Amino acid sequence: MGGDLAPVQIVEGAALAVRDLDVEVVMVGLPDAVLPLLERHTELRFVPATQVVGMEEHPANAIRAKSDSSMSVCARLVKDGEVDAWVSAGNSGAALAASLFILGRIRGVDRPALGSMVPTANGFTYLLDVGANVDCKAQFLVQFAQMGAAYAQGLLGLENPRIALLSNGEEPGKGDHLVREVYPRLERSGLNFVGNVEAKEMLAGAADVVVADGFLGNVAIKMAEATAEYIFRTLREEIPKSMVGKLGGLLIRPRVRAMRSRLDWREYGGAPLLGVDGVAVVAHGRSDALAIRNAIRVAKQSVDAGLVARIREAVT
Amino acid sequence: MGGDLAPVQIVEGAALAVRDLDVEVVMVGLPDAVLPLLERHTELRFVPATQVVGMEEHPANAIRAKSDSSMSVCARLVKDGEVDAWVSAGNSGAALAASLFILGRIRGVDRPALGSMVPTANGFTYLLDVGANVDCKAQFLVQFAQMGAAYAQGLLGLENPRIALLSNGEEPGKGDHLVREVYPRLERSGLNFVGNVEAKEMLAGAADVVVADGFLGNVAIKMAEATAEYIFRTLREEIPKSMVGKLGGLLIRPRVRAMRSRLDWREYGGAPLLGVDGVAVVAHGRSDALAIRNAIRVAKQSVDAGLVARIREAVT
Repeated sequence: MGGDLAPVQIVEGAALAVRDLDVEVVMVGLPDAVLPLLERHTELRFVPATQVVGMEEHPANAIRAKSDSSMSVCARLVKDGEVDAWVSAGNSGAALAASLFILGRIRGVDRPALGSMVPTANGFTYLLDVGANVDCKAQFLVQFAQMGAAYAQGLLGLENPRIALLSNGEEPGKGDHLVREVYPRLERSGLNFVGNVEAKEMLAGAADVVVADGFLGNVAIKMAEATAEYIFRTLREEIPKSMVGKLGGLLIRPRVRAMRSRLDWREYGGAPLLGVDGVAVVAHGRSDALAIRNAIRVAKQSVDAGLVARIREAVT
Repeated sequence: MGGDLAPVQIVEGAALAVRDLDVEVVMVGLPDAVLPLLERHTELRFVPATQVVGMEEHPANAIRAKSDSSMSVCARLVKDGEVDAWVSAGNSGAALAASLFILGRIRGVDRPALGSMVPTANGFTYLLDVGANVDCKAQFLVQFAQMGAAYAQGLLGLENPRIALLSNGEEPGKGDHLVREVYPRLERSGLNFVGNVEAKEMLAGAADVVVADGFLGNVAIKMAEATAEYIFRTLREEIPKSMVGKLGGLLIRPRVRAMRSRLDWREYGGAPLLGVDGVAVVAHGRSDALAIRNAIRVAKQSVDAGLVARIREAVT
């Protein structure tokens, strides 16, 4: 039921996943909205819910008030071992709340975190937290680093991922009080800590995992997304303003499309919540079928990689 | 002496300013480095300094240790009334330190701030603080808003500038503890406070002045700059990979150039430090002659608009 393109694109994405990924998928939602779509997709199973959490609702309050929401039903299916993972493109705060209340935290984890894959010059960097937690303590960021390393090892196949802190300068004394407090702790953590990075180094691929307070990480990722959208929109408006530009625009279109798909968050589809005791993948609110398929792929990879067990080990 | 292209481009920019802007310019620096360049520019005056603050030096320590640095000499020229304003493309922290130590703060200002003009869909938004202060208190951000409003009124000609807080969501409860504390204070401030903005709304031009802690503002502005550079570099690499793309790339070049100049920080050149008792303009470290000319224009506008008096009034 979640996301701008639900339920049609969610169902289509689930069907793609079943076709491509050797998974079974259970759709959870309002029968009236979902069942008609499943007539063409008998490969998908269905479990009903009677409530839906809206994008604008207060996450924790909504999950508390709506115990039969599609999100709560999903989390319970994981809790009860009926499924291995759940995926949502809905209200990400509510997905976190449902996971926290129903699956609980992994022992030793203070705060679960949500990461995002940021495209870089030579691949991707995993930035976390991008919004699950504001007003973090130093201990939370150390755990984000440990969980991020476990994610990079399990899902990205990196043996010794490079961990960095997002900051306003590379020198050890840079950063706000939080960054300055976390820095020496990461130096002593046994992780492959490569120090502070600024945005420029992050986008140049200087680290595999970049750690930040969820408020900073959220503003940073949104700034990057908004800037990219702004530039591509301005190019689309400016280039056709001359006839020559219009022709040139047509000629470069395939190359620009190739590039945009490299930058496309849909290629990743979603990111698992790190630190909850079960696999929960949060997909972008604008997810289409491709993004949903890829979010399901991330869920499958998380299960196959034993992500929860890896995190349990990483934080103890 | 400051900036990547000093001293040649600084001298050229000063000459452009004298030609275009009805100003007199005094160059301050090491005689050996600067005087040879002034042979061709007899319109520029010269005052010697015997020391230089490097880009990597600790700002406050460097200014304390080097009382005859070009920055300190500049600030003293303002203090002594020999000149109306000073401009530097050097170490911005040191420019702040020199201004603070020598010019002092305007009475009532807790922390001077540095802003930056961010290009938007319909013009520019003034974002502050972008790096002068980390770990701000709520009171500092309220003053940033007051000073930003004074800047927008004096230099941008906006009668009732819209003030917003940079946050991770638009709703009043969003933000970290600092944003949540500042929000109600700005509501009561008498300013035209329009609430929280996310990056997307900021780049859509939803506010004239956007206020943030200097750590957040610095990471945000660098994220935008790094993303823009990343996209344009990738376009330059990807488009010519096919013959058709190569031709298209040639055809769109003039339009892309027109667009980039719209996004170009060099058009603004620099931003005044707000809250110090004198006009000090910080230019980008990569400033070329055009950027320096425009930074001098900002300095002249700040003097003509009575910026210091406006800020004194705004914070009392």
